[in-house]
Amino acid sequence: MTTLDAMRGFAQRAKAASRVMANATTAQKNQALTALANELRTRTASIVEANALDLADAKTAGKNAAFIDRLLLDPARIEAMAKAVEFIVTLEDPIGEVTETWRQPNGLEVRKVRLPLGVVLMIYESRPNVTSDAAALCLKSGNVALLRGGSEAFRSNKAIAEALSAALSTAGLPSDAAMLVPDTSRESMLALLTLDGLIDLCIPRGGEGLIRFVAENARVPVVKHYQGVCHVYVHHDADLEMAERIVVNAKASRPGVCNAMECLLVDEAVAPAALPKLARALLEKKVELRGCEKTVALLPGVPVTRAAETDFGKEFLDLICAVKVVNGLDGALEHIARYGSEHTEAIVTTSRDAARRFTREVTASGVIVNASTRFNDGGELGLGAEVGISTSRLHAFGPMGLRELTAQKFVVEGDGQIR
Amino acid sequence: MTTLDAMRGFAQRAKAASRVMANATTAQKNQALTALANELRTRTASIVEANALDLADAKTAGKNAAFIDRLLLDPARIEAMAKAVEFIVTLEDPIGEVTETWRQPNGLEVRKVRLPLGVVLMIYESRPNVTSDAAALCLKSGNVALLRGGSEAFRSNKAIAEALSAALSTAGLPSDAAMLVPDTSRESMLALLTLDGLIDLCIPRGGEGLIRFVAENARVPVVKHYQGVCHVYVHHDADLEMAERIVVNAKASRPGVCNAMECLLVDEAVAPAALPKLARALLEKKVELRGCEKTVALLPGVPVTRAAETDFGKEFLDLICAVKVVNGLDGALEHIARYGSEHTEAIVTTSRDAARRFTREVTASGVIVNASTRFNDGGELGLGAEVGISTSRLHAFGPMGLRELTAQKFVVEGDGQIR
Repeated sequence: MTTLDAMRGFAQRAKAASRVMANATTAQKNQALTALANELRTRTASIVEANALDLADAKTAGKNAAFIDRLLLDPARIEAMAKAVEFIVTLEDPIGEVTETWRQPNGLEVRKVRLPLGVVLMIYESRPNVTSDAAALCLKSGNVALLRGGSEAFRSNKAIAEALSAALSTAGLPSDAAMLVPDTSRESMLALLTLDGLIDLCIPRGGEGLIRFVAENARVPVVKHYQGVCHVYVHHDADLEMAERIVVNAKASRPGVCNAMECLLVDEAVAPAALPKLARALLEKKVELRGCEKTVALLPGVPVTRAAETDFGKEFLDLICAVKVVNGLDGALEHIARYGSEHTEAIVTTSRDAARRFTREVTASGVIVNASTRFNDGGELGLGAEVGISTSRLHAFGPMGLRELTAQKFVVEGDGQIR
Repeated sequence: MTTLDAMRGFAQRAKAASRVMANATTAQKNQALTALANELRTRTASIVEANALDLADAKTAGKNAAFIDRLLLDPARIEAMAKAVEFIVTLEDPIGEVTETWRQPNGLEVRKVRLPLGVVLMIYESRPNVTSDAAALCLKSGNVALLRGGSEAFRSNKAIAEALSAALSTAGLPSDAAMLVPDTSRESMLALLTLDGLIDLCIPRGGEGLIRFVAENARVPVVKHYQGVCHVYVHHDADLEMAERIVVNAKASRPGVCNAMECLLVDEAVAPAALPKLARALLEKKVELRGCEKTVALLPGVPVTRAAETDFGKEFLDLICAVKVVNGLDGALEHIARYGSEHTEAIVTTSRDAARRFTREVTASGVIVNASTRFNDGGELGLGAEVGISTSRLHAFGPMGLRELTAQKFVVEGDGQIR
């Protein structure tokens, strides 16, 4: 049997399960989620054991500390996974929700009703907690999850997938409703990506290489969770203390996540006053600064290197920050349109006009006034939990929660109308 | 210059124009639409002349009457195009619409705001009116339209595109905001389909071959407007007079469109009473019937041929109807899940329980109770106008109007919040 045949058979099982999942009751889905939390807890020892094998291989392969940390599961992290699953129990079931309803002049009653997307293929990298997080969100939204994590986490993911399968059975739901892709070869991923008609959505989460590979090879619909090249623009009418607080938080609180600031834009009208203050605050947090020519000139004696052209538009995911002096709001909008990744863009300003223009003209999934870029996050925006942050404008733009894992159908009721 | 380079340059112009269009006011966009209607009217003679050349070639090539009719433009049809454009002026501008707004516990004010998708590539076949219809919908929704019609309509489309360009200039909008793809080769279409990052959405409308070609070759996001294999299920509790009216309308009123019924499902409990009546009504409209074994047995002396397995799940787009006797609601749901194309599915029933189960369990963009399948249409459902009917669950499912040509961003306003 070829890899393509094997993957087609695998996806066909998923598709068959998706019909059952679409009609599962909220009670059944919540029962499965509660069972999953319990299974994760009771299987803690075996999950840690499987994880230890993955960790040992990663260390042998010379992976760095950050990598090892992402891969690591310990009892505390498994408890956090269980809690995250239990939290999803408390969220409202989106399936069957009527989002709009109206009556046509001919008496037809029309409503839009949420239904699951169907089979969702999650492709992710080394964090094994994504296996239970993503599966739980798919389950609650009536979708079937195909989980394709990184090869380095395969044994950890397998142990979590066994908990999933047991939980689905407990609730009388098909165990095919959440399945780990049985191997982590490129061939099997490629095969899955061609199965248009069986896989309704692919969500790739990870580095640029992975996303590009998926985008270039997919025949199935893809919602990309791509990089965040996020800017904070300090307008000339900004409250500079607020600007400092926001800039430091946006960069230094968690530099390795996609909603972190990668580039600071300072309005030239306020740069002489603002830049030394902002630079000092970032340097205190051990942030390396890479400034444009004007930035460097305005910071004599400050350790700021001259930015290369490639430092603009770059996702550092590290304690590094590009800095640019821009010519007013127009200059900031130009820079963001050119270098931003449509993820998260922020302005600090006391000007109502500047805020209005910024929020209207910036194309990004999150456009933020006087707050940290870090708020472009499903939990922080009130979506409950998220499967990731979409940088595709199509279908869902920004944090994807339960609702974003659904489609909507038109339901039309009449009493014999014809055209 | 290679085709790919040429198409990249073309799409880059579109992308640049999309930034202007995203910020165009409603008044500007309406001015351009009004100008377009006027341009179409004043250019009627030259459009008809261009169309005559296309028609002559089509006749020489031996195209059939239906093809020639789809291609034909005359003053009445051009006036209808102008009227359709003027109607779009009356529709609400979706851009800037706030669809939801809430406040987070930390004081952040969050709203979701509609913005354009960006650059929309429309790929369609022989009807030249799509050139102005689709461009007008894109224009009103702040999108840039790249229009790629069929080669057989190229001169007609070019004449219409000139009207478009003139109208955009009149309103002070970039003429790059609606452009005809300059050639209709497969190579240029292939090149456009790879331009992820420049083209935000591709909407293919047409036959199975075209859609499949696009789906297999696209690296850009695609919302398919695919075939309609639509069923009407006559439940055992149906009002048989209503069923007859609906079945005849769904099949015979316009058999060549995607929301026409292609297969009639009759509940076996009512088949002996219903089938002869329904068959007679369809035969009166010159519909060819292809029935399952039970259907044939229940219609002695009636001209119904035995259906081949391939007649189920087939989009005839003609006065041909497959007929199947099914085992109750479960049988109907099974058949639809297996053979339907998720376009439009209807039930005729007086049973509230059957209607509820049907509307809940059927996955289709339009699920209809006691009315004709023909109501799954943007105009009939109150969307105003439509660019087509999506059979993709992602982004938009069913008729795509102005709102479905938009994305939504999160706008977050705070007073210095950090995490």
